[in-house]
Amino acid sequence: MMIPHYWYNINVDLPKPLPPPIDPYEVDSRIALLMRILPSELIDQEFTPLRYVPIPDEVRELYERMGRPTPFRRAYGLERALGNGVKIYYKFEGALPAGSHKLNTAIPQVYYAIKDGAKEVVTETGAGQWGLAVSLAAALLSVKATVFMTKNSYLNKAQRVLFMRTYGADVYPSPSELTSFGREALKTKPDHPGSLGLAITEAIEFTLMGEGRKYIPGSVLGFVVLHQTVIGQEVLQQMPEEPNLVIGCVGGGSNFSGFSFPMIGAKLRNEGFEKTRFLAVESRVAPKLTSGRYMYDFPDTGGLLPMVKMLTLGHDYVPPPTHAAGLRYHGAAPSLSMLVKEGVVEARAYGQEEVMEAARIFARTEGIIPAPESAHAIKAAIDEAKRMPKGSVIFFNLSGHGLLDVDAYSNTR
Amino acid sequence: MMIPHYWYNINVDLPKPLPPPIDPYEVDSRIALLMRILPSELIDQEFTPLRYVPIPDEVRELYERMGRPTPFRRAYGLERALGNGVKIYYKFEGALPAGSHKLNTAIPQVYYAIKDGAKEVVTETGAGQWGLAVSLAAALLSVKATVFMTKNSYLNKAQRVLFMRTYGADVYPSPSELTSFGREALKTKPDHPGSLGLAITEAIEFTLMGEGRKYIPGSVLGFVVLHQTVIGQEVLQQMPEEPNLVIGCVGGGSNFSGFSFPMIGAKLRNEGFEKTRFLAVESRVAPKLTSGRYMYDFPDTGGLLPMVKMLTLGHDYVPPPTHAAGLRYHGAAPSLSMLVKEGVVEARAYGQEEVMEAARIFARTEGIIPAPESAHAIKAAIDEAKRMPKGSVIFFNLSGHGLLDVDAYSNTR
Repeated sequence: MMIPHYWYNINVDLPKPLPPPIDPYEVDSRIALLMRILPSELIDQEFTPLRYVPIPDEVRELYERMGRPTPFRRAYGLERALGNGVKIYYKFEGALPAGSHKLNTAIPQVYYAIKDGAKEVVTETGAGQWGLAVSLAAALLSVKATVFMTKNSYLNKAQRVLFMRTYGADVYPSPSELTSFGREALKTKPDHPGSLGLAITEAIEFTLMGEGRKYIPGSVLGFVVLHQTVIGQEVLQQMPEEPNLVIGCVGGGSNFSGFSFPMIGAKLRNEGFEKTRFLAVESRVAPKLTSGRYMYDFPDTGGLLPMVKMLTLGHDYVPPPTHAAGLRYHGAAPSLSMLVKEGVVEARAYGQEEVMEAARIFARTEGIIPAPESAHAIKAAIDEAKRMPKGSVIFFNLSGHGLLDVDAYSNTR
Repeated sequence: MMIPHYWYNINVDLPKPLPPPIDPYEVDSRIALLMRILPSELIDQEFTPLRYVPIPDEVRELYERMGRPTPFRRAYGLERALGNGVKIYYKFEGALPAGSHKLNTAIPQVYYAIKDGAKEVVTETGAGQWGLAVSLAAALLSVKATVFMTKNSYLNKAQRVLFMRTYGADVYPSPSELTSFGREALKTKPDHPGSLGLAITEAIEFTLMGEGRKYIPGSVLGFVVLHQTVIGQEVLQQMPEEPNLVIGCVGGGSNFSGFSFPMIGAKLRNEGFEKTRFLAVESRVAPKLTSGRYMYDFPDTGGLLPMVKMLTLGHDYVPPPTHAAGLRYHGAAPSLSMLVKEGVVEARAYGQEEVMEAARIFARTEGIIPAPESAHAIKAAIDEAKRMPKGSVIFFNLSGHGLLDVDAYSNTR
């Protein structure tokens, strides 16, 4: 099988035009700020009118070296355990070396930063999946990576910090002494646990402080979703039959969207998938798809980025802790939000305990320890398989493995 | 590519007949004991005259579901970093869900135990790679697994304990209260740290205590090496050209042997690989290949198993601690020992720091965090590549990933 030559841009096939990002105030343009700190090609991709965006050869080569195409497997063991003749297939993004789908966009973002002359990429990370992917992409492309990690995660996710450093990255707990925003936060509250909003603020300030730095973001923005469609583009080549149901978990929406948009696009263009349902699964601690409002809001807690129209719980919503830290996000990507709003994509929220039980069933029947985030998709696949007729076909995206999520499995019976 | 239909038995192609296992004393036959506690098919395989032993269809199916054939990749990033035109390929056994090659023999051993009517498999484990593989194989084949883990590792390798339990296994720190040997050890020394010898003793006693239990061992024995040849059998199909050098790391010898024996066998039969060298790499803390004696010795510290003729440091040799816990073993498989003795296989020992430096280079150039054990092979590949002529070809076995070896990477700069 070949690595896809194109990412797929669903914006051109959406039921309605996508509302554009806007500046909330007349001064301090956030759009102008983004244009200064982001690699320029990413800005172009955010607004591209192309349905298919070419994947550069250098990026395709790195995708291949890192193990793309990832496996698309039939879950024979899980099927047998359920025993009702429903066929279940899963795409395994955890086969990538940083352990999740995040590498799919980290590689092109670092690549475009270098094309702009960058010597260093800067980003923020919460639980660390994104930071780890950026650290690896920067190592592969021989530039420096600097990662601001929310202090609470920095202290509790020691493994991911270690492996970011193994890849050669500089990792700082946020708030840090490196930026004025960080110093201010520490002065006010020396034991500040950090927040993703503050980490973004520090990453952006740090980017502006030095020469040759570019800022690269891991979620929600259109080009992130675009890059992730390499997952679904592969599925179109790998699938032996059309599914009745396609499932993915949603934090900001990039893995669900990357997996399903090439199929949803075909359905919207009446080129197949007529009988396919699409189900987005979120955590009950951050239920924007099932309980959020469709409105303009900031994608970041700090309100530094342009506003986008999306399903959101409000940018100041603080989700309670959960094992699935990657799903603790207040909003969902604008394109995905519209598809939920328009009824093309269904949504459901699950609680932590039922999800971890599904994770254990999957581990014992399929061998792979799933990430707690991805286990939300497994839980939905199990529930749906139980009520679908024999011979039905389910696809789900296993967005990552759980080998670095020890705490999530620590109360395993 | 197809999953191989046969394991390869090098014993029929060795330069001399392999000295058989022997009982050290006239009473308490260890061979008779093994015949009671091991699955009977494994005893047959230990002494089979067949060159090619058929892999049962059920085992092949599980190999395939768990991700075999594993990737055989060219290390373009590492090659570029070395920059002298030597081609380096690696086989990646860490792609298997339990993270190492151990699953290759855990699956058939559990399968044969069930064919003997077993309802439970019992084993011991040190650092936990073997225990994790057995726990997974038992989950996939729906039998119970009980694992005695040396107490020191049990306390320090919490992740592997957790994931064994996630797979449904019962895991006990050894010494335990479950056996008379365990109780005796705890009475003498309540804070006994455990030893692999004691854990083996407990596992064997526990096997004999109950109905429907079989004992399955993870190292050194001939059938373990036999099952691991699935690795090299795949390489014969995957390799684009013959190598000048084949490298693997050696604890007891099963991953090196499984990787290289199909190629060494072809060389011994004059069916290719005339210009190929074979290099076994051990840890300086357990240098049996470079400093051991070729003699009859016990494969287990406790002296419960039959004696075998091998390169050994003595069964009471206690290697100092090292990150590469899987290489802390006093002997090497009899077939491999003979090949080293006869000069067919070269041997070399490395120290911990130089090996971890090679691990970091590999992580940054190839993306995969290697197990500290496997990093010994990487170190040798780097050293050899530097002195080989342009166009030379190196194969090495990356026997596992290091995502559960946090301690080894904790002093990463």
